[in-house]
Amino acid sequence: MAIKIIDISRPISAKEPIYPGNMPVELMALKKFSKDKSNLSGIKMGLHSGSHIDAPLHYIKMGTSVDKLPLDETIGWCRVVDVSKLKSEIGEKEIKKFRPQSGEILLFKTRNSRLKDKRFNPSFIHINQSGAEVLAKARVKAVGVDGPSVRKFRLKPDTVHPLLLKRGILIYEGLDLSKAKPGRYFFVGAPLKITGAEASPVRAILIKS
Amino acid sequence: MAIKIIDISRPISAKEPIYPGNMPVELMALKKFSKDKSNLSGIKMGLHSGSHIDAPLHYIKMGTSVDKLPLDETIGWCRVVDVSKLKSEIGEKEIKKFRPQSGEILLFKTRNSRLKDKRFNPSFIHINQSGAEVLAKARVKAVGVDGPSVRKFRLKPDTVHPLLLKRGILIYEGLDLSKAKPGRYFFVGAPLKITGAEASPVRAILIKS
Repeated sequence: MAIKIIDISRPISAKEPIYPGNMPVELMALKKFSKDKSNLSGIKMGLHSGSHIDAPLHYIKMGTSVDKLPLDETIGWCRVVDVSKLKSEIGEKEIKKFRPQSGEILLFKTRNSRLKDKRFNPSFIHINQSGAEVLAKARVKAVGVDGPSVRKFRLKPDTVHPLLLKRGILIYEGLDLSKAKPGRYFFVGAPLKITGAEASPVRAILIKS
Repeated sequence: MAIKIIDISRPISAKEPIYPGNMPVELMALKKFSKDKSNLSGIKMGLHSGSHIDAPLHYIKMGTSVDKLPLDETIGWCRVVDVSKLKSEIGEKEIKKFRPQSGEILLFKTRNSRLKDKRFNPSFIHINQSGAEVLAKARVKAVGVDGPSVRKFRLKPDTVHPLLLKRGILIYEGLDLSKAKPGRYFFVGAPLKITGAEASPVRAILIKS
């Protein structure tokens, strides 16, 4: 069976922009080939680095951590929808147009995927509260965005993350959908099995057969 | 389409045994729900923590790093073979019995998957040089083991990692195959897209349709 794999992940690197407050990425060499004939490293990074998943524990006191998420909530059929002409936020009107379905993983391709910012850009396209309410009502399984956060930068109080996570809707942030045309794919975005973590970087991919 | 997903990953946690010389796992809280109404963390860990992939750069001077690996080398059809009765190493004889095929991902289920050691156990089942030579000759795509390393603990010089990696055979270590019966599956073991890294923890899974 010939399958096509599309990488929708951003790099994890000290050179990538960091969301303010997140831990910078640092790769640390423990062994180097020149001296030890092998390379061995460790890493220090925020769990919300690059493309990542937010588990309920991110915004819910006793919420589920990434290692306890059922894998079939992070893997499955998904739909990439194009809102790349949008210049502001993704709201009720924009989302209703696509008729979100119960149990689906919905990925929003915006102009964020076109921009390859070298520094953190706070004016990314995001989902607003009315949009999150439509997704919650439709009972989608997960939502993915190609900006550094699902909600407006420094939105206080945050009315988007808790609204989605309390309804059991997982959140993918920091995707790169530039190579993904709108359509249906098989999505894989399983988190690392980090005990007790509220989030995890993921290698998010789309598979098309 | 009903699919079954089998998790073959070990936890990433400070409580898990560490391979000597590797960096311990440390989860660091940047924000806590009790104070900040959200949890936000960073992590420090060896790249060879839990279930992980070794890229050629691990043992080859200018070898490919995990972020540059073609994804179709880390995803695809695989075979789980049972050598769990074996009390020593996996060699030529044991591997030839299964007739390894060109392009396949071959995962060896050993007694390592039964043992849930709380401390590092150096006498894990591993692949010896003659076994690695059979795999190289057969041109398998990747090999996976359920011990902390593909080769004997402290084998010097290491004649197994370089032999496999120089032939372009990727190595998965630290898998937990206790829930995987022998047979054919669709394997997903894509590394994180960590720029310039010689290895990456992975959430390795098997899919059966």
